[in-house]
Amino acid sequence: MSSTESLNWRYATKKFDNSRKLSDEQLDSLKQAFNLTPTSYGIQAMKMLIITDKKTKQDMVSMCYGQLQVKDASHVLVLAIHDEVTEKDIDAHFDNVVSIRGTSEDILSKYRKELKDFVNSRTQKELENWCINQAYIALGNLMTVCAVEQIDSCPMEGFIPEKVDELLSLKELNLKSVLLLPVGYRSKDDMFAELKKVRKDIKETIIDL
Amino acid sequence: MSSTESLNWRYATKKFDNSRKLSDEQLDSLKQAFNLTPTSYGIQAMKMLIITDKKTKQDMVSMCYGQLQVKDASHVLVLAIHDEVTEKDIDAHFDNVVSIRGTSEDILSKYRKELKDFVNSRTQKELENWCINQAYIALGNLMTVCAVEQIDSCPMEGFIPEKVDELLSLKELNLKSVLLLPVGYRSKDDMFAELKKVRKDIKETIIDL
Repeated sequence: MSSTESLNWRYATKKFDNSRKLSDEQLDSLKQAFNLTPTSYGIQAMKMLIITDKKTKQDMVSMCYGQLQVKDASHVLVLAIHDEVTEKDIDAHFDNVVSIRGTSEDILSKYRKELKDFVNSRTQKELENWCINQAYIALGNLMTVCAVEQIDSCPMEGFIPEKVDELLSLKELNLKSVLLLPVGYRSKDDMFAELKKVRKDIKETIIDL
Repeated sequence: MSSTESLNWRYATKKFDNSRKLSDEQLDSLKQAFNLTPTSYGIQAMKMLIITDKKTKQDMVSMCYGQLQVKDASHVLVLAIHDEVTEKDIDAHFDNVVSIRGTSEDILSKYRKELKDFVNSRTQKELENWCINQAYIALGNLMTVCAVEQIDSCPMEGFIPEKVDELLSLKELNLKSVLLLPVGYRSKDDMFAELKKVRKDIKETIIDL
């Protein structure tokens, strides 16, 4: 299947088949995809939580304005950002570069300082928005990987993050939930699967210069 | 190649081979991918500009703090958001749903009103951030499609949007540039292609619940 065919195959799944579960191999593809998401300066100030527990998924329904996908999907992926970004995150990143690539501090110190200046010159609100943008890159990446791997998914911005944070004890982990992505298999009677995809004409969204 | 292998193959290309061009088929995959990007409520309040012209690419270098990828890449994709979102955009979307799916207005009117209320209750600054988030989904999608199609790319947030907007006359098109993605082929002597990928240990970024 070409990438275009895969993207045409996917849709925001409205009804999942609650009897079918993703395999460990499929989940591993999604874990790898999240961790391989390109992020600004490579900082990765976010984590992905994987909800398998039936009761937890059931509890999430009311926090998602009654959307049943979180209950019926095989798993719910929660994309969460770090609740603050500090010099510690920068040092952790560059220490990781040294550890993996063996790059010398002589080369890295300039970039380490540059990035610390970037972080120190911004408010935590600005840094939060910066992290949120990266979570959206992860969402775009994950939805496409799902499509390529023939995994159904449904992106969700519409939920009450404070409630989800409380349910999953995210505050204790210094995390804030930003996006949900229930994943699994479409139900055979999800009428949305058969509807034509609604997109603008490509001549309207693409400008060749 | 599995999706994980594709994502491991990609990297933020630092040096493109300026003698190699993407084919029309490859460009078409990227156009389709952009247009098929899932967006909030399906609104698609963004466009992708494709820069082929050599002089324009050269002129962009100084607006990108000297990063030569915009000059040497086969093409530069510019992700731009609509400079405002109004009820007109909502009507255009729902009219498109009627046209493509033949859905009756009886069913749609509730959602049409809901979305107009959403737009009318938010400031243009909030709506701009909402659109920017969607552009990041497109970026994530496009980078993954590039990886799957073995096209090299380099995501760029670091540029002066006002300058790019002026160069491409985006104001006249009611657009604002948000992200750049030079695409093409890595140069054989891009030393970054051979470096080990730097990512946190997956045990640190994934939490199984």
